[in-house]
Parts: sequence; C-alpha cells; structure tokens
Amino acid sequence: MVLTREAVSPRAILVPIGSEVVSGNVVDTNSAYLSRELTQLGFEVIQHLAVKDEAFLIREVLEEALGKADLTITTGGLGPTFDDITKEVLTGISGQPLIFNPAQFRHIQDYFRKRKRRLHKNTRRQAYFPRGSRIFPNRFGVAAGIGLEKEGKWLIALPGVPHEMEGLFKTEIAPFLGSHFGKFKTVAVINAKIIGLSEVEAVERMGARFPPADENIQCGIYPSPGEATLRLTFRTSDRKKAGSLVRFWSKTLRSKLGDYLISLTGESLEEVVGKLLAGRRQTVALAESMTGGLVAKRLTDILGSSRYVRGGDVVYCDQIKNSVLGIDKKTLSRYSAVSPQIAGLMAQSSRAKFSSDWALSVTGNAGPGSQGGQPVGTVFLGLSGKNTRLVKKCFFAGTRERIRWLASQAALNMLRLALLNG
Amino acid sequence: MVLTREAVSPRAILVPIGSEVVSGNVVDTNSAYLSRELTQLGFEVIQHLAVKDEAFLIREVLEEALGKADLTITTGGLGPTFDDITKEVLTGISGQPLIFNPAQFRHIQDYFRKRKRRLHKNTRRQAYFPRGSRIFPNRFGVAAGIGLEKEGKWLIALPGVPHEMEGLFKTEIAPFLGSHFGKFKTVAVINAKIIGLSEVEAVERMGARFPPADENIQCGIYPSPGEATLRLTFRTSDRKKAGSLVRFWSKTLRSKLGDYLISLTGESLEEVVGKLLAGRRQTVALAESMTGGLVAKRLTDILGSSRYVRGGDVVYCDQIKNSVLGIDKKTLSRYSAVSPQIAGLMAQSSRAKFSSDWALSVTGNAGPGSQGGQPVGTVFLGLSGKNTRLVKKCFFAGTRERIRWLASQAALNMLRLALLNG
Repeated sequence: MVLTREAVSPRAILVPIGSEVVSGNVVDTNSAYLSRELTQLGFEVIQHLAVKDEAFLIREVLEEALGKADLTITTGGLGPTFDDITKEVLTGISGQPLIFNPAQFRHIQDYFRKRKRRLHKNTRRQAYFPRGSRIFPNRFGVAAGIGLEKEGKWLIALPGVPHEMEGLFKTEIAPFLGSHFGKFKTVAVINAKIIGLSEVEAVERMGARFPPADENIQCGIYPSPGEATLRLTFRTSDRKKAGSLVRFWSKTLRSKLGDYLISLTGESLEEVVGKLLAGRRQTVALAESMTGGLVAKRLTDILGSSRYVRGGDVVYCDQIKNSVLGIDKKTLSRYSAVSPQIAGLMAQSSRAKFSSDWALSVTGNAGPGSQGGQPVGTVFLGLSGKNTRLVKKCFFAGTRERIRWLASQAALNMLRLALLNG
Repeated sequence: MVLTREAVSPRAILVPIGSEVVSGNVVDTNSAYLSRELTQLGFEVIQHLAVKDEAFLIREVLEEALGKADLTITTGGLGPTFDDITKEVLTGISGQPLIFNPAQFRHIQDYFRKRKRRLHKNTRRQAYFPRGSRIFPNRFGVAAGIGLEKEGKWLIALPGVPHEMEGLFKTEIAPFLGSHFGKFKTVAVINAKIIGLSEVEAVERMGARFPPADENIQCGIYPSPGEATLRLTFRTSDRKKAGSLVRFWSKTLRSKLGDYLISLTGESLEEVVGKLLAGRRQTVALAESMTGGLVAKRLTDILGSSRYVRGGDVVYCDQIKNSVLGIDKKTLSRYSAVSPQIAGLMAQSSRAKFSSDWALSVTGNAGPGSQGGQPVGTVFLGLSGKNTRLVKKCFFAGTRERIRWLASQAALNMLRLALLNG
C-alpha cells in the first residue's frame, strides 16, 4: 500500500532481458535490487519491462523506455552465447557499429587465465562495444557495462548475473549516476519492520497526521508473511535536514508502534534477536517439532550467531521427544505432542540440556491431517528462561510452508519480547 | 541458456501492477509462476511489464499488451485501498462502467464472517466489476478475477497475493484458458534437475545431437546455486506422440546423466531423498553444526516427512558436541570441530542416539574467520548407515548463505547416492 506519492524525480525504467525470465525459469531479482538502489539515488522507477531474447522486441521496448524515462537500465544479454543480443540491439539504437576494444580483451584474457579456465572462441565477442559508448569496467566478471547517451537520456546495459550486476552497479554505475543526476539525491531511508499488526492497523496507530503531507517524504507499507515493512524515503539534498528528519521519524515510529516495531533499518527478526542476546551475553537453545529446524536455521543464518546459539533439537516424533528430551511417555500420551503442556516441557528440558539462558520450543500441526485432536495450523510455543515460563497458542492458516514460517516468526518474536521486557 | 527456439504459439504478456514491485520493495514472483503455467498450457510468454500504480501508465501498458499478445494477465491492484486501481483502468479500456455484483458481495461478507474479521467500508468496492466482464470466483480470498474479451483477445486481472493468485489460476483460469486456447496445447514438459555438473558439462554429456533440431521441442538449461534445471517442452496436440517423446527423452536423460540426474519432474533434492527413504521404509537423523538446522528444515519441508525424519541435533559449539552427541573432549581438541574425524563421529553418534537407519552430519566453516586452521568455505560431511561410514570434504566459495546452502545440497546428495547405490 503506497501511502504518499513522491516528488518529481528523474524517471527510470528497468529492462531485464532474457527468455529465462519471461518463461519463468528464473525469478528476476535484479530489478528489485536496482529499484531500491535507484530510489536511494533519487530516481523514481516507473516500470520493469522484461523481454525475451528477440532483437525486434528488445528494440521496441528500449525505444519506448527512452521515450518515457530519463534513465533506462538493461540487465542480461551481454554474455558470449548466441542468445546474448543486447549489444546488437544497442548498435541499432545508436546507429554505431560494434568495434573491438583491446583493453577489454586483455581484461577478459586475464580473468580467464587467473581462473585457469580456457577462453571459448565466442568470448572475443565480449570485447566489442558500440562506437562512442561509455564502457564501465566489470571487476566481478567478463561482461563490461555499456552506457549510451541519446538526446540527454541515458541507456545503460549491465550483465544479468546478480553478483556481477550488483558489484558493477556499486563500483561504477552509482558514482556515475550520482555525478549526472546528483541534484535529486535522496539522503535517507527508514525501513521500519513491524510484527503483530496488519498494514491497516499499523497505519491507524501512526495517527491521523500520518502519512505526512510533504511531497519530499514518500511513504509506503508492504506486507510479507508474518510482518510488514513501513518505508519512509526522504528526498533532500540537505544532509543536515535529512538527519533531523530521520531522528524525528525514528522517534515517532518508536513511540507509536512500541514493541510492534522490530527495527528501523530493515534488520530482520533473527538479526534483532541475535543482537539482543549478544548484547546481554545470553544464549539460546531450540526444541523444534513442527518447524523441523527452521528456527535454528534462521538464527544461525546470522554471522556471529555461534556466540549465542548453543544448539537445538529437532524432535520430530513422540519417541524422540521422550528419548532425546526426556519427556515422560505417559505425559506425552496424556496431553498429546501438540499441547501447551508438551510445549512447556520441551522448552524446560531443552534449557536444562543445553545449559542455556533461554530455550524456545515449537510444537504444532503443519498438516496433512489433524493430530491429537488439533486441527492443521495449531501451534504451541514454549519459552523457558531463568524467571520465565511461557506457553502461547497460535493458529495459522495457509500452506505447510506458510504455517511453518509463521510459527518460526511467532517463536522468535516471543523471545524478542521476553528479552526486551526481561 | 536457451538451447532452442520455440514454435509459434499464442502469445502472452504479464503485467504485475504495483508500486511496491517497481520500487523494489517486493520481488515479483507471480510472473515467474504464471509464465511456467502458461508455457505448460501452450502459450509463449513474451514480456513481463511491471508498472507502478498510476492509471495512465497502466492503461498505456495494457493497450500496448493487447496490441502484441493474445492473452494479457495482470496481477495486483484489486484490493480495497486507494492505490488499487486496476478495475478503474479496465473500465477505461472496455468502455463499461463498474456495476455492483450481489453474489460477490455475499461471498465477501461470508469470507469476513468466517474469519471473525470486521468488514472495512472500502471492502464493498471489491464487489464491483466492469459490466459484461467475466468473473472468476476466488475461493482463497476476497478479490475475484476479471476477464475482458476485446477483439478476440483476452485481458484477465488477478489479485496480487501469491497464494490467492495461484489458487485462482489453478481452479478457474487454467481450465478457462484450456477451453479457449486448447488447440495449441503443450502436452508435456520435462524438468530435469541436475546436481554436480555445470550447465556446459551437462549439455556436453547429452552429446552432439542435443539439443534436437525440432521446432516443437524447446530446450533450455538454467543454473541455480548447487544445481541446474534442463527443461524440455514438447508442443503437440497429439497426446500419444507427447507420451512417446517424454518416454524417449526421459530414457535418454537417465542414460546420459546417470547419477547426476536428481529428477525428471522438477522434484527437489529433499523430495527425492524423502521418497527414497519412504520407499525403503528407512529413517534418517541429522547432526548439524555449520548448517544450523538447514538440512533438517529442508527435509521436514516435505509433507509426510515424519515417516522418515527421526530428528536431529543442532550442535553449534564444541561443548554441545560433547554434551549432546557425547563426542569426547580430547578428541574434539585433538582434531578440531571442523575435521573429517569429527564429521564421522557426529554421524555415528547421531545414528545411535536417534536409532535411525541413516545419520548425516555437517561440520564446517561458514565464516567469518578461519576456524581450527580451516579456511572459510571448508565443509566436512559424514554419513553413517548400517554398512556405511563415509566422510567427504568439500570447499565452497561465496557468501555465508551460499556456503550453507551448498553444504546442505552436498549433504542431501551424499545420502541420495548412498540410498540409490546401497
């Protein structure tokens, strides 16, 4: 949900090129990356136009984009194989032939030599560029970026491999764009992550004066499973003003959203929980049934998590809950594995076993059928701490993947709240 | 890498609508899903045209799409908030006003009542549709799909929430398209998943006669971290011929790719391992250090995995490897945790502890610094079975996320090969 419109900014259109994108074999993540970066630089991205590897279609799309936008960036189609035709299309648009660039060819030879890979005969094609174009050297691969100016507008072609494209953008393209379009610079962005409120509820909490009626502040709120992101973009070329805007809005978000606010910088729930644990020099252990390792996986996704993750158990059947966590067989059959009692015992037992400050447990039913009388989507969470014994019941609808994800979200948030308030 | 071009088919263009997409706050996965499904139905998807929530831009894009394609599908912009303007644009295109549909309003009321949620005043907007349009009921949410015919071409608007869009596509749109565009039907697709070979190596193994010079067989190969997908699409309206093509190519792929072939139907590595275990009525346990639960998470992503996943341990520090898996402290300090010896002991100990047929272990260094003399990216895998004691050393480059993913891939593949050959 877009909350406010943005000020007039230079407009950009992104053109991912490749049949693998339009056939659905590859999800285009490049455009989302470039959109975020370009927004930070002060551009307004108005379209993504993915197109298959067919020269006349690509040319049509690029000419349309040049008509509408100040900046057009293509990704893909700069490789050595027959379906890489972006450069041929560029020559059509610029009216300039491809000419050989010896410096780029040396770079390509070096690149292959260092990696002890043989140079395919087609690779020489990658050292040709439209005459008069600007070449952006690629330190991360072979395909250099290409810039063409046409009637004051820029068309830039980048390679499609995400890490090459991102590296090239950061090192070469962003500085170039900054020098050309610098006066529109966006100085600051707040990415507020929210848990436990719907989009509408979060906006309601912000009060009637939100979103602010300032065309230089752009607001939007975007849901994803189990959380929402409220994004504020401040467009100003005055660094001081940007700083004070960020401070003011950070304070406002904190006071209005309270514990529903996970972070202001887009930090994930697992990063925030990790920082809280590390800051308190405390540790955590996990006892997971229905999430099958997902909570442990998320916590250990974070660099440095060995400081606070002691370990965990995946206890996927009753027998294992007994043998690994030492939960009494009679208790298990009395309450059934999907019960508040067992969630509580799992957390307590895990905390004792791993000698950790905290232990978090998840037991529930992710399907297919009902289990111990509990319908699909029922989840019990347990949290054990020095002075804490909590059990929470949740219910989630949707697919197995979604139910497991939402259970991991709720479990991590339970620990976050205990750390904040403990 | 596209290997062959496709035959002439009805053309489709996808139009994801929403500023959250073009601003990069949301990655558009809907278009990849729809592209795959439409390809199976016999369409050739030529473009994805993502556009921000601005009526004149959307209209421009839709009119352009209607000019080029036989079928245009929009996703998003059917919700109740002010920036949901797809329907308004449709009225502009069809020249028909929005009219109230009582049956759809009852569906919306029921939907909210069942979920005990209050009906927002804006929700009534979702029961209005352009006069004369075809309504596709949405069992998965509130926003129905809308179909407009214009000069023999179809424009279909679907909601943007992925699980609603997918459900609606499967239940309503695919059958509708089948009945309208049936004669171009693609009868078959092979999605060969490959592990352990690069794109180029896989194509080389297929031999000089591959890809086949038949315009009704489209081939492409697409890499993703730790695997590749070789996709063959057979376009024919003759079901018998399609069957024999699939049998012939399945056999060819099996003989040329051998154990590098994970599946022919796009089944994931964890699904294949799960089926092998279930088929042999065997069970597995995990002992994970650097993957921190990722292998267990992947195996338990699969419905019915409780039949063969006994459980697992996340042993994230030496002390836990000792207390939880019973690995001797002296052995740990002699070899260090990242060593073939410890990988082997972890697997053996896990198998004994969980009384499983197999146990898989992962220990390694995902960063930041070197660990016990082992550089970042070093991974040792252990596999213990009735007659099996294997340890494997791997080295992976890249980010922490990538190293962990590749380690989980290699571990699951080690188990797959043992199951196949054991």
